[in-house]
Parts: sequence; structure tokens; C-alpha cells
Amino acid sequence: MARDLSIAVCQTGPIQKSAQRPETVDRLVALLEKAAAAGAEIAVFPELALTTFFPRWRIDDRAEIEAFFEPAMPGPQTQRLYDAAARLRIGFALGYAELARVDGARFNTMDLVGQDGKLVGRYRKIHVPGSSEPEPGTTVHLERRYFEPGNLGFPVFVYRGVRVGMAICNDRRWPETYRMLCLNGAEIVLIGYNTPLLLDEAPAQAHLRMFHNHLPMQAGAYQNTVWVAAAAKAGVEDGQALIGGSCIIAPTGEIAAQAMSLDDEVIVHRADLDLIAVCRKVNFDFARYRRPDQYQLIADQV
Amino acid sequence: MARDLSIAVCQTGPIQKSAQRPETVDRLVALLEKAAAAGAEIAVFPELALTTFFPRWRIDDRAEIEAFFEPAMPGPQTQRLYDAAARLRIGFALGYAELARVDGARFNTMDLVGQDGKLVGRYRKIHVPGSSEPEPGTTVHLERRYFEPGNLGFPVFVYRGVRVGMAICNDRRWPETYRMLCLNGAEIVLIGYNTPLLLDEAPAQAHLRMFHNHLPMQAGAYQNTVWVAAAAKAGVEDGQALIGGSCIIAPTGEIAAQAMSLDDEVIVHRADLDLIAVCRKVNFDFARYRRPDQYQLIADQV
Repeated sequence: MARDLSIAVCQTGPIQKSAQRPETVDRLVALLEKAAAAGAEIAVFPELALTTFFPRWRIDDRAEIEAFFEPAMPGPQTQRLYDAAARLRIGFALGYAELARVDGARFNTMDLVGQDGKLVGRYRKIHVPGSSEPEPGTTVHLERRYFEPGNLGFPVFVYRGVRVGMAICNDRRWPETYRMLCLNGAEIVLIGYNTPLLLDEAPAQAHLRMFHNHLPMQAGAYQNTVWVAAAAKAGVEDGQALIGGSCIIAPTGEIAAQAMSLDDEVIVHRADLDLIAVCRKVNFDFARYRRPDQYQLIADQV
Repeated sequence: MARDLSIAVCQTGPIQKSAQRPETVDRLVALLEKAAAAGAEIAVFPELALTTFFPRWRIDDRAEIEAFFEPAMPGPQTQRLYDAAARLRIGFALGYAELARVDGARFNTMDLVGQDGKLVGRYRKIHVPGSSEPEPGTTVHLERRYFEPGNLGFPVFVYRGVRVGMAICNDRRWPETYRMLCLNGAEIVLIGYNTPLLLDEAPAQAHLRMFHNHLPMQAGAYQNTVWVAAAAKAGVEDGQALIGGSCIIAPTGEIAAQAMSLDDEVIVHRADLDLIAVCRKVNFDFARYRRPDQYQLIADQV
């Protein structure tokens, strides 16, 4: 019997600093309803989908920082999204700023939630880019000021019988991300991102930002024979232009569906999971062809 | 002072089984002369550039097999190519079937030769694809019948002050190849390949063969901030259609130059080596961002 899973990518337009959580959660619920109406069985939202991309600023006020973080998921203001999932029978992956319950550590996190509205699994961003202090002359963000590096590895979870992994923004540029998820058994990789259009440190590369968004995801899909579904936060957010280009990529590396706006938008594709085996057969029979004894440096050297 | 190196990719058309070595070496010398005339300082030839791609056949006759292999490089029939390099002051990387002097082992090999016509370094293909016996219903080649897996790692050599690595055909599909070469310090990766257009095991993917040629090389260049220069053996060789698409790819992942024929053809691009540092700065400051402690599975599990 053919195996498939209908995937929705829920891109959002900008979420301004002035937006209140209930208003933002309304937008996410509306997107989830559209995804479910289109027959999708799982949805992915962007990185930090509940707030503006606050690491673009240096903030010193503790209360102002804490307001961007979620001490519990779901919390009083996000519960409605989880209720919608259970009502619509569609799970989702959601990026948010996590304040860890146990020790107060902060992570850039994505949770996978099931069709019953309950947590299935959690991923914490491994490749946290940027710095902890502003670097003049660059667009380097301050993610390292606000987030610790992820400490949960590259886990893969079973969702409706399908093995699902997650990655967040900068993670998608590194080939190791897809390889680790693939070796852990992933069939689908869900990604959320916030990516500025303009970089002060490389002004001549503005035309490459979309290419550099799709290239590593397409290669990751092809080289690991996985489906990739990636959701952008797009448009001009608090004065900074973010690229869109949300997409669903087949294990062939082809873009099967792509967002056409910089606004709230849903794209859906029914992912044929049997295509993975076909692609494996052509070039990527791992058991037969990989040479891990030749790769040790990858795990030894920065 | 700006650093650069002018690179020539010397694509060849088919080299039929009926071709004699002197005739083939004539073609390679002519390509090297064109490359030198265009100001190139290094050239790359295809995989198995001295013969037809013989692993497409099962051959039992020992003498017939041995005729495809080089017991010494240069040998009496290839010396002229090395002399041309010294005369023209242009080094090259050349793919050929190597019969190892010491123990008679056979490898799918690429040699890097300097501007003095002397050997600089050797690479033996790590990812040897295919099988040792024909697999009906597939286009799987018999590379494992004729070649042992490479045993020299992913070495990098200094050529005119530039750090050069090599890879052969199927190697270019694996992200570990570029990553290992990059960690070993490569600034330029020279690749040769023979890639059939049609695969019996995936007839619906014929339109993807060129995409699957360029995608992993462009991603490898981008993700490792290296220049990639890749030479195809192209056209209908002994009844089998081989793709062309030879190209020079910048560390941005962009194709800077591409062959337009399926014949003997030279493309040249002066590679700006300072672009590597620019690209490193944007996303790929390895020392700052790689997380090797998270990647061990890549070196442990097939």
C-alpha cells in the first residue's frame, strides 16, 4: 500500500514587536484551519512564530526579554492553537523561544505536536548563529545572547507512522543536520526560519539570499532522500526585510510547492513516502556506499 | 594582494573502445594547449580520461582488462601530455585506471601534475559505486569488479600556493567528500566524472540527471566555501549516452562557467580565492559555528 502524508507549510508575514500574543495565535489558528481544510495532516510554522525576531536587538531589560519567552507550552495564550489541532485532527511543528521549566535555560526550540494536541517531541536549535554582543558593520544577530546551544541532539519522532525530524533556520545550511537526521531515520524534515534579505557584511550577495535558502535544503533532501518542508517568517518585520520562499522539497531535491507571497500563506503537498526508496536505489544505498571510516574528521574538527 | 588562479575544465567527448591511446592523448594535449592559450594555470580532465568507461561491461579476459589500466604514470604513451604541461607551464588533474606498482591493486585514480610535468599528488576514488556482478534491470556499473576503494583519504595538495583537493564522479554526490576536503584545507576541488543519462532503475528521473549533477556540487561549494571545477566525459560513448554539463562553481554556489557541448571543450574562469573569506564570513565561520560533538554518528554508522 502506498504511504503518504499531506504536509502544509504555514508561512507567516511579519509579526511586529507591537503584536500581542492573542492576535498572533489567532493568525496561527487561521493558518492551521486553512491547512486542515486543504487536507493536510501535519503543518509546520516558522522559527520564533509567536514573536518578532527579537535577537536582532540588544535588549538589557530583563522583563522585556522574558516577555518573548514561553515558560510553558501550551500556556494560557497558546492553548487555543493546541485545541485547534485536536479539533481539526492536524498536528504541527511550532518554533518559539523556550524558557526551560527545570533550570531556566533558554533555547530556540521547535515542538512537534500530535493530532490530539499533545506534545510528541522537542528539538532545540543546534547551530545557534551570531554573537552575544553587536558586531558593528554586520547584520550578525544576537542569538547567542539569548539562546544556549541545543542539547537534545537531532531526534526523530514517529507521527502517524512517519518518522519526522526538525531543524531551525541556520541549521538548514549545514549538511550535517540532514545527515544526522537521516541516520536517525528521518523521512521528513520540518524547518522554520527567519532570514534577512540584506547583510551588511556581504552587500553584493543580496541577490543570492533566496538561492542560499533553497540550495542547501534541496541538496539536503536529495543527498539524504528525505522530504523537507520549510516555513519562513517573511516580509518587513520591525523595519527588517525577511525573505519568504517557504517550500516543500521532494527527495529528488525538486521544489514541489513554494509560497508566492511575503504574507501569511499556506502551501500543501501530499508527500509520497515511497519516493524515498526509489531515490535510495539510484545513488544513495547508504549501507552499500557510505564510508564512515573515512569521515572521522567531520566529528573531530571544527 | 588579491589571490586568484585561472582554472580550465577540459571536457572530452566520448572516447570509444576502438580509440587508441595515442589518438586520445592527442586530444588531451590539444585541450591542454587551448587551456594554456586562454591563460589557464591549471586544468582538470574527466574520470578515466584515457579510455572508454569500461566498467559498463563485464569483461573476463585478463589481457583485455589490463589494457585499460596504466602500470606507470607517465608511461610511454602518456609522456607527451606531461611534456606538454612542462612546455606550456600548466599543470593538470587527470583521471585514469591505476594499476598500483607495489602490489598490483587497481584503483580509479586522479593525479595532480605540476607546471613542471611532475606528480604533485594522487587521489584514489573513495566512493566506488556499483557492484562486481551485473544486476539485471539496472544501469548499475561494475566499478567494484575492477576497482578497490580508495585508500589515500581525502588529501589536499599545494599547487602554486593554492590548496587543491580532488574527487571522482560518485564522490561528488556525497556531502562528506567536500566536508573532508574542506576540513583538510582545500580551496579548490577538481572533479572528473562519467555519468549516464538514462538509468533503467529510475526511468522517470532522466530529466533530473543534470540537476543531480549540479545540485550536490553547488551545495558542496557553498557549504564549504570552495571553488569546484568539474570535467565530464560526455556524448554517446560505445552506445551509452553520457551527460556533459562540465562547470566551474564559485564558493557562492553559483555556476561561473559551463560547457555547452557534448564534445571536447574547454571552459576557463579566473577563480577569485579571496571570495572564500567573504563567504566564510557570512554563514560559515567553522571555528565559531560547527558542532562536531553533535556529529559522531556520521563517522560511526553507514
